[in-house]
Amino acid sequence: MKIQNVKGGYDFLPKEQKIRNYINGVLKSTFEEYGYLPIETPILCYFDMLAGKYDENNDILNEIYKLKDQGNRNLGLRYDLTVPFAKFIALNKNELKLPFKRYEINKVFRDGPVKVGRDREFTQCDVDVVGLSNQMIEAELLSLYVRAFTKLGIEIKIKYNSRNLMRGLIKNCGVEEQLISPTITIVDKIDKLSEEDFLKELTNIGLSYNQALKLLDSFNMSLEKLNEIFKNSEIGEIQKGLEELNNLEDYINAINIKEYCEFTSSLARGQDYYTGNVFEVYEANGKLPGAIGGGGRYDKMITEFIDDGEIYPAVGISFGLTSIFELLKNNEELSSNNAIDLYIIPLGTEKYSLSLANKIRELGYKVDIEMNNKKIKKSLDYCNKENIPFVIILGEDEINNK
Amino acid sequence: MKIQNVKGGYDFLPKEQKIRNYINGVLKSTFEEYGYLPIETPILCYFDMLAGKYDENNDILNEIYKLKDQGNRNLGLRYDLTVPFAKFIALNKNELKLPFKRYEINKVFRDGPVKVGRDREFTQCDVDVVGLSNQMIEAELLSLYVRAFTKLGIEIKIKYNSRNLMRGLIKNCGVEEQLISPTITIVDKIDKLSEEDFLKELTNIGLSYNQALKLLDSFNMSLEKLNEIFKNSEIGEIQKGLEELNNLEDYINAINIKEYCEFTSSLARGQDYYTGNVFEVYEANGKLPGAIGGGGRYDKMITEFIDDGEIYPAVGISFGLTSIFELLKNNEELSSNNAIDLYIIPLGTEKYSLSLANKIRELGYKVDIEMNNKKIKKSLDYCNKENIPFVIILGEDEINNK
Repeated sequence: MKIQNVKGGYDFLPKEQKIRNYINGVLKSTFEEYGYLPIETPILCYFDMLAGKYDENNDILNEIYKLKDQGNRNLGLRYDLTVPFAKFIALNKNELKLPFKRYEINKVFRDGPVKVGRDREFTQCDVDVVGLSNQMIEAELLSLYVRAFTKLGIEIKIKYNSRNLMRGLIKNCGVEEQLISPTITIVDKIDKLSEEDFLKELTNIGLSYNQALKLLDSFNMSLEKLNEIFKNSEIGEIQKGLEELNNLEDYINAINIKEYCEFTSSLARGQDYYTGNVFEVYEANGKLPGAIGGGGRYDKMITEFIDDGEIYPAVGISFGLTSIFELLKNNEELSSNNAIDLYIIPLGTEKYSLSLANKIRELGYKVDIEMNNKKIKKSLDYCNKENIPFVIILGEDEINNK
Repeated sequence: MKIQNVKGGYDFLPKEQKIRNYINGVLKSTFEEYGYLPIETPILCYFDMLAGKYDENNDILNEIYKLKDQGNRNLGLRYDLTVPFAKFIALNKNELKLPFKRYEINKVFRDGPVKVGRDREFTQCDVDVVGLSNQMIEAELLSLYVRAFTKLGIEIKIKYNSRNLMRGLIKNCGVEEQLISPTITIVDKIDKLSEEDFLKELTNIGLSYNQALKLLDSFNMSLEKLNEIFKNSEIGEIQKGLEELNNLEDYINAINIKEYCEFTSSLARGQDYYTGNVFEVYEANGKLPGAIGGGGRYDKMITEFIDDGEIYPAVGISFGLTSIFELLKNNEELSSNNAIDLYIIPLGTEKYSLSLANKIRELGYKVDIEMNNKKIKKSLDYCNKENIPFVIILGEDEINNK
């Protein structure tokens, strides 16, 4: 038997885990300031429920870990927290009051290729609200992003766009309906492609060169400009998208977070299920190439999942914990944060040392005791190396003379 | 597609999750006071590694969820945190200094029969130290139990015994070596059996009636009495067990936790891997029939797992989070703990309300805003029902006259 970890799964050492716990703590307290409540859902799900939304060639379907229990049931490990959230609403809707605001920070699993930022097993962190269809809540979520990242000491830029505007702009180039989704998939990669390759990929799936060029041009416009040009457009999605964006921008200005936000008409977000405004968060100084958070409105997904005749509009954001950890892992202040405040070295005073340690712990300090009869010199070296600020060497004289 | 949870897995609603988070928070802070460091290990493991210690008829082996990844590797979901801990030590031993004290609070999975206290998927909470072989650290762990449960407001009784004494007492009845383990398995159930059934089960596996009776008698003795009777016993395990227990009791007395502790010579602990003192924690007033924590010394397991010629003595305790939750879930103070401090009802003042909410959140308060244009009466009913202490109804006059 070779002892090893499964690819794409990691042990976190204490110095790493302390930073991860710190990040989670900051996020949780921020979510709760904004009225989001914690829930927990199971990892093991019925496979059919996880697979429900996808056709059999979908990547996600292949990346679900499948297993059977002793009762031969077909199960899977959840690959995100959104389907479990929909299930949670479905099963508990009589106990919940809408709007319902929840967060969940828990493990998800994807049996896909392992690369930077793509692990087989990782912790997902989602904040969603179901039951609100306006832009006010979206602005509040963006302000939550600003607040949380400010607390973490990370400068951010939030890109935002409307999925409706995106679809409308594509339609406006004369692209036919069934090519819209594939076009969005390519637009999602626009930052990674040269202009030439971008146009080429679009023509490859069936757009004419002129359509592709026109689409590219429309991505260089400000919201103001788009409002002006499309004032009288008859494409419903453009009108709807502009309205969503103008509403959102009004709120963004009103709550003074405009400096963190940037309208980006090429912002696509990969997932098919978005129905309104979408967001993506980047480290403002380019310290990481990829997004460190993202989300958007998805008014149909939970509605279709529950399918009880009610409408369940929803909007949510997620925090990329792995990326945030990457940004903070070398933070001197966090990693030097000592795990032990006081180290007691007993010299024949083991019992008294145990009692003393307990008394000091009751004051809230972190106390450890040398229990291996190490040489004093070795123990002091250990304290230095571990950055332990206080040491008590406790001999019998110290107790007798106290 | 029927929407349901897999048997033995549960959704935790916010009111439940808040209590679970509270319990975890108290435990984590206590572990850190005692110098234990957080780690995290993966859920997905190579099946061979999980199965290594067990023969193919072992229950645990059957209860490991098995799965394959797309690369056809044989994987399993971990069923405890102890094997992953051994793996963690093996893979990271060059980065760690012994003694190494860690805690981990994470999910484990068991594909077994679901009954009260036995779920398919649950959160395990383990505190272990590797690299110390004395009773001083054991006493410190018991004092950690006392401190943690005191903070949680739960009165406890800790039963303790020595696995060596147990084996020695069985030997002393003339039971042959290969019947010792099966005998311990039956002793583990002693509290659930009548005297008659206990004796019957023992004779069923091959003990004589007199042997069984003698064993039962030895379980009615105090440590003092056992010390007296077996002063000159030639059974090495009895001598070793009494020494371990006397040492532990010395420390227990010295640190004033004797009132919480009770020597119990019939305490067996099911697991085969214990090699020294063992512990089990019960709610002191019988509010729950089963144990709410347990642990003990296991000096061979990690040593044999790593098998690098070094000795890795270890001792650990675990906290039964499900049982602790059961004890606290009806605690008025915890469940009435309001999730929202202040609710703002905007009357045409949406933008100002968002800004105001943010300002109050920055002071550390939890603030939510009505965003669904509900009638004021309905909103106030909601605030009453949710126990929200402060409400601001914000009309335009309030802003203009401020």
